[in-house]
Amino acid sequence: MFAEPSEKTRDLLQRLNAFFDEHIYPNEERYLREMDEFRRAGNAWQISPLIEELKPLARAAGLWNMFLPHEHRGVPGISNLDYAPLCEVMGRVMWSAEVFNCSAPDTGNMETIERYGTEAQKEQWLEPLLRGEIRSGFLMTEPAVASSDATNIQCTITREGDEYVINGTKWFSSGAGSPHCQIFIVMGKTDPEAPRHAQQSMVLVPRDTPGVTVLRHLSVFGYDDAPHGHMEVQLENVRVPVANILLGEGRGFEIAQGRLGPGRIHHCMRSIGAAERALEMMCDRLSARVAFGRPLSEQSVWHERIAESRCMIDQARLLTLNAAHKMDTVGNKEARAEIAMIKVVAPNMSCKVVDWAIQAHGAAGVSQDFWLAEAYAHQRTVRIVDGPDEVHRNAIAKLELAKRKAAAQR
Amino acid sequence: MFAEPSEKTRDLLQRLNAFFDEHIYPNEERYLREMDEFRRAGNAWQISPLIEELKPLARAAGLWNMFLPHEHRGVPGISNLDYAPLCEVMGRVMWSAEVFNCSAPDTGNMETIERYGTEAQKEQWLEPLLRGEIRSGFLMTEPAVASSDATNIQCTITREGDEYVINGTKWFSSGAGSPHCQIFIVMGKTDPEAPRHAQQSMVLVPRDTPGVTVLRHLSVFGYDDAPHGHMEVQLENVRVPVANILLGEGRGFEIAQGRLGPGRIHHCMRSIGAAERALEMMCDRLSARVAFGRPLSEQSVWHERIAESRCMIDQARLLTLNAAHKMDTVGNKEARAEIAMIKVVAPNMSCKVVDWAIQAHGAAGVSQDFWLAEAYAHQRTVRIVDGPDEVHRNAIAKLELAKRKAAAQR
Amino acid sequence: MFAEPSEKTRDLLQRLNAFFDEHIYPNEERYLREMDEFRRAGNAWQISPLIEELKPLARAAGLWNMFLPHEHRGVPGISNLDYAPLCEVMGRVMWSAEVFNCSAPDTGNMETIERYGTEAQKEQWLEPLLRGEIRSGFLMTEPAVASSDATNIQCTITREGDEYVINGTKWFSSGAGSPHCQIFIVMGKTDPEAPRHAQQSMVLVPRDTPGVTVLRHLSVFGYDDAPHGHMEVQLENVRVPVANILLGEGRGFEIAQGRLGPGRIHHCMRSIGAAERALEMMCDRLSARVAFGRPLSEQSVWHERIAESRCMIDQARLLTLNAAHKMDTVGNKEARAEIAMIKVVAPNMSCKVVDWAIQAHGAAGVSQDFWLAEAYAHQRTVRIVDGPDEVHRNAIAKLELAKRKAAAQR
Amino acid sequence: MFAEPSEKTRDLLQRLNAFFDEHIYPNEERYLREMDEFRRAGNAWQISPLIEELKPLARAAGLWNMFLPHEHRGVPGISNLDYAPLCEVMGRVMWSAEVFNCSAPDTGNMETIERYGTEAQKEQWLEPLLRGEIRSGFLMTEPAVASSDATNIQCTITREGDEYVINGTKWFSSGAGSPHCQIFIVMGKTDPEAPRHAQQSMVLVPRDTPGVTVLRHLSVFGYDDAPHGHMEVQLENVRVPVANILLGEGRGFEIAQGRLGPGRIHHCMRSIGAAERALEMMCDRLSARVAFGRPLSEQSVWHERIAESRCMIDQARLLTLNAAHKMDTVGNKEARAEIAMIKVVAPNMSCKVVDWAIQAHGAAGVSQDFWLAEAYAHQRTVRIVDGPDEVHRNAIAKLELAKRKAAAQR
Repeated sequence: MFAEPSEKTRDLLQRLNAFFDEHIYPNEERYLREMDEFRRAGNAWQISPLIEELKPLARAAGLWNMFLPHEHRGVPGISNLDYAPLCEVMGRVMWSAEVFNCSAPDTGNMETIERYGTEAQKEQWLEPLLRGEIRSGFLMTEPAVASSDATNIQCTITREGDEYVINGTKWFSSGAGSPHCQIFIVMGKTDPEAPRHAQQSMVLVPRDTPGVTVLRHLSVFGYDDAPHGHMEVQLENVRVPVANILLGEGRGFEIAQGRLGPGRIHHCMRSIGAAERALEMMCDRLSARVAFGRPLSEQSVWHERIAESRCMIDQARLLTLNAAHKMDTVGNKEARAEIAMIKVVAPNMSCKVVDWAIQAHGAAGVSQDFWLAEAYAHQRTVRIVDGPDEVHRNAIAKLELAKRKAAAQR
Repeated sequence: MFAEPSEKTRDLLQRLNAFFDEHIYPNEERYLREMDEFRRAGNAWQISPLIEELKPLARAAGLWNMFLPHEHRGVPGISNLDYAPLCEVMGRVMWSAEVFNCSAPDTGNMETIERYGTEAQKEQWLEPLLRGEIRSGFLMTEPAVASSDATNIQCTITREGDEYVINGTKWFSSGAGSPHCQIFIVMGKTDPEAPRHAQQSMVLVPRDTPGVTVLRHLSVFGYDDAPHGHMEVQLENVRVPVANILLGEGRGFEIAQGRLGPGRIHHCMRSIGAAERALEMMCDRLSARVAFGRPLSEQSVWHERIAESRCMIDQARLLTLNAAHKMDTVGNKEARAEIAMIKVVAPNMSCKVVDWAIQAHGAAGVSQDFWLAEAYAHQRTVRIVDGPDEVHRNAIAKLELAKRKAAAQR
Repeated sequence: MFAEPSEKTRDLLQRLNAFFDEHIYPNEERYLREMDEFRRAGNAWQISPLIEELKPLARAAGLWNMFLPHEHRGVPGISNLDYAPLCEVMGRVMWSAEVFNCSAPDTGNMETIERYGTEAQKEQWLEPLLRGEIRSGFLMTEPAVASSDATNIQCTITREGDEYVINGTKWFSSGAGSPHCQIFIVMGKTDPEAPRHAQQSMVLVPRDTPGVTVLRHLSVFGYDDAPHGHMEVQLENVRVPVANILLGEGRGFEIAQGRLGPGRIHHCMRSIGAAERALEMMCDRLSARVAFGRPLSEQSVWHERIAESRCMIDQARLLTLNAAHKMDTVGNKEARAEIAMIKVVAPNMSCKVVDWAIQAHGAAGVSQDFWLAEAYAHQRTVRIVDGPDEVHRNAIAKLELAKRKAAAQR
Repeated sequence: MFAEPSEKTRDLLQRLNAFFDEHIYPNEERYLREMDEFRRAGNAWQISPLIEELKPLARAAGLWNMFLPHEHRGVPGISNLDYAPLCEVMGRVMWSAEVFNCSAPDTGNMETIERYGTEAQKEQWLEPLLRGEIRSGFLMTEPAVASSDATNIQCTITREGDEYVINGTKWFSSGAGSPHCQIFIVMGKTDPEAPRHAQQSMVLVPRDTPGVTVLRHLSVFGYDDAPHGHMEVQLENVRVPVANILLGEGRGFEIAQGRLGPGRIHHCMRSIGAAERALEMMCDRLSARVAFGRPLSEQSVWHERIAESRCMIDQARLLTLNAAHKMDTVGNKEARAEIAMIKVVAPNMSCKVVDWAIQAHGAAGVSQDFWLAEAYAHQRTVRIVDGPDEVHRNAIAKLELAKRKAAAQR
């Protein structure tokens, strides 16, 4: 990389890798086994004992809340650029981010409350989240409409006296399956008559509020992603105090704008880590298997795929670092083209690399014996969540066309 | 299609579609629900009540054993070309083929015993299979070697007196999870010193033979594909009478050659049906959803994908019909290039079309609410089973290069 | 192919191949040399002596006007399906079609006059065209507008008494560079106030009419395609008798509809022939060259490309035969989806195959020493002429979406 | 870009862009017209008056020999990283690099002599080259063998007394068509019995040496690329003094290694500039054309291509800058994986972007009226010269596999 990582990052990275070697990789099988036992016993929606065991170790090792891009109550943050290689490592093991309190959607929710919340909201929800005591959900997507266009969102948030009354059905509410999950950020319409981008607001809704029902989980390919899951949540005459609103009525889009950038780039950083691991596994498997008289690793058709993988990964990483740097230096809004670009590039790249790695493993590649099929299912989903490829490509293209129009007028 | 389907096929097709409209499509949800209930109750490896209910209806409707390419004991067979559109319909609902006794690996196993078995073997195993009373497994792939090169297979079949003693570990033994599954065809080495293609043999192994252990299932992108599954099977000093050999010692490759053609083309026919259904779902969803002010179906980026899907499906179908015709007229061996070609083309095509359909559905596309993610998992696996893409492409290329060499010598 | 070619086609094909072996392939170098000598002498827009020499031989061999899909004045036509393999052979050598009076745009122009012309028009223009004495041009595309949407066309055809007065600039008027080219079919607006699809008409314009100026040629990736070329033609107050109109005022779209199908499928048939030849050259070159100790033909990366080429060519051919059969049996209009599909598939396929063949040849592949770079330039252009890919894909998608809407209403 | 360009680069870049605005873009038509007039007059192999006119201006503007990566006789060089954005600009107009004495193969030849030549060789050949008074050729590729494997090269360099006698045929000797071209660097075998990588040597051969014949030019698609061209050169008993050897007998590979890195990265930098310009043209054309009632720029299928172009260009640029930085900091040899990666990525990317831009222009895109078809022809060729994609991908894959093997042994 032509801009070398900072001293601080290199130190954190070294310690994070050491933690992975000691506590994460050796426990991958245990994690799956424990969750599988819950599942077979009839209820997968339980706290992972392993993760609870590792969280204090991570905190003690100073590997905690690294996602925070700026100082918060005396805790120094690190820049997006510094965070990138750390987050990439966490992308290698899907459940690992929570160990470091760096898992979605909590990171995005914590940032949202930190940036847009009142002191009271921070006290009540941000602090326990930062301590990793509770988890949170983000309720935006709805089953009945194309949620890629957020103006379609139908959930209503109607003020009645000192309360908001919320009605709607949300789904793919990630993380809402966990027993730890205690707080939701809900997006909905406070004023359907307002201008298109001033209709939506965000409110904080405690999970135990009457009228909130977690209906069921949505699977991702065949995975339930327990214990966090992707849940369908019904909101029926749910009442919260007006103090629970974030930033103010009609400002939901503004928050979404600020919130989604970091969430997206974290996805991309993890996608790069996943692809890197898949490439390692591909190389190892090809070297270990012989067919028709030669190791598969000597077949030029695999040379092509290994080389393309390396080229694609390195390009996606550089593009992501570039976006991180731009977010750090000119802000998330100015970096919107760069964020949109990586949101398209990174998961498409990782899908391709993981898919090749699956093919290199033969039938084993689609099974539970390797991490690949699960990684594919997850990476494929990243191409849809937080805006599908098509929406981001449209945004990039419009900015590009606008640049040319501006150039023509000069 | 420029060669119109035969009268017989058109009649069968009409009746099969009617059966689907009456009995299959309306029961898709029930099938999933029943299997899920078994799963949640702790054991998914049970007979589907629905399928058992529908089998007699299918038999009564004359939609039974349609896969048989030639007459057997008075039952007239239909040609591969005639079977193609029927099998394509069955590809639209993954569990449907069993209703018509047309499901893998039973079809391949039945054909194998019919072509290469003794009268006694036929009486004992073929007849109950043809009546749909029992199910079967095909044990070839092994976890420890690149099984795409069948000479790698390590399982030993050692003659001791009047018995063969079998030792080995097999996996991805599809169908072996079903309680109905009573007979395995096992491939292994009878003579490790023989020439490379005369080392392997196939023997019939009843599932309840001592030493046979079905260890566990292998998942496919998170799906267990219960009740049939893809199982790991241990064979430890398994003893069967020498009469259980198929065709003779050292003739395993010869059988594999004859057997794999039909199995492969059936996969491809079903892949086309799956893709056709995915395209229908894609069109319907795009027409039903509005984003940024217009139905998604008016976006030219989706026009491109719909058009490419239609072009790819129609081409794959014509290529498959062409291969079927060649198998019918000059035999499976002469048609080996054509079979290899569709084995590469059809599942790659269906993966692409299903993937676009997933994207058109947004997050719903990866969930259990639509059939798409499961179809993707299955189609992706077809690119590996019965020979991965790479092996078939090598075979096609070598035939092509040989053609040119022959032309040069004329 | 699962529908075997007819007796008649097989006989014609055998004779055509024999003619190629005797007269076409051995003269490829001479053709290039002769045209190059003209070019170096300062004027490439001259009759090819070779083609003039071969035309009588082809006619004597009964290989003349084979493109005619139906009987004309006692000359029996052959079906599109029968013509396909013959046209494919002509696609192997770009200049060869003219030898058999089967070259574009003359074939399309002949068909147009035959279907829509008056007896007088046929006598004057069709007969000498059928005898190969003159050549013709088709003037539709204009430099100033997106001609893919034919309603954009600006050329005016204004009636003044017994004459039409034509004004406009046309380009990519293929064939108009030849000294033999004596007649143009011109598309333009007779009534800009009429409904959108009734504004345009087609008129016959003799090249030597005052006001017609052939301004210059347009190159195709550096090739001038002399002597026929792709010309820019100015029409300035060009006057022709009203009897020169085809079919009637406002019927230009109707003619275009009927005319473009055959022209498009001929392009596709030739694309398949070009791809087939490129694949042969690829195989031959790879077998002849050694790098890093092994013939290139043993590299699996080339196996992949050879196999993909074979799969793509065979699929495109089957799709084209299918379209031809549909044109023969239900007419060009009913076959519009099939024609659109091959118009997208065939040239994209041939571009890919030719591109791989270029890569297999190294730098030699882009040079004049092999036919490949010129073939690429031509095939790439086919993706644009007679409607760019995008327009055909939109048409296919709209038909597909309409099918689903109709199905939903049943 | 997350590492901002240096002050020096920004200043140079601003001045270079100003020079382009004033002297290069406004003269593009003139350049083509002048060369075309030579061509039509029968001899295209003449000095471009325009370039000769502009060279002194560029030199006066301090925009001269910017490619030099290090100080030479008091002239300060700039780093590869600093040169990248400058070279990218030159990629926008194919003939422009020579104006700044930065054109291939002269840059590579100058670097070679500078690094490996004797003082006498530098005095005689390097100095006039650096002053732009003469041009040079690099004779490596041969028509008879797969030159991608340099050990295949057959040209013999046999010592006889104080002279080397050279025999061989070389082709694609770029630049050798120019009347200014006075010196060749020739690669050939001095010792066919030596170990494989010690057989080859490089010698300086003045073009006017008896026995040297420039036979003909090789076209690139239909372009002759006059006046420099890609020539076939015969060497028949060509005698040069032994002092003309570079570095020593048997050291040809060593020089090639050192030489090819910079040449390759310059190609890539220019490819990025070409792609950037193609994207601009694509956007402008799409905004200017209306079809089916809307500007093409509003079609989402074009949004996809514009967005993909922007993503691909930015990624390729970052990868190239990364390689440049590595060459600057750890040397060309250590950066060989990075150089191989961009050599695959950059021209494949630019081919794709230029191809889309062609499609956006319709038929005009393949013609001489736009720069696109010529750019495509050139970019396509870059995928072959200086090592075809396949060779570089093999190298990348082998390094990747070796990394994993090393990791396994730790």
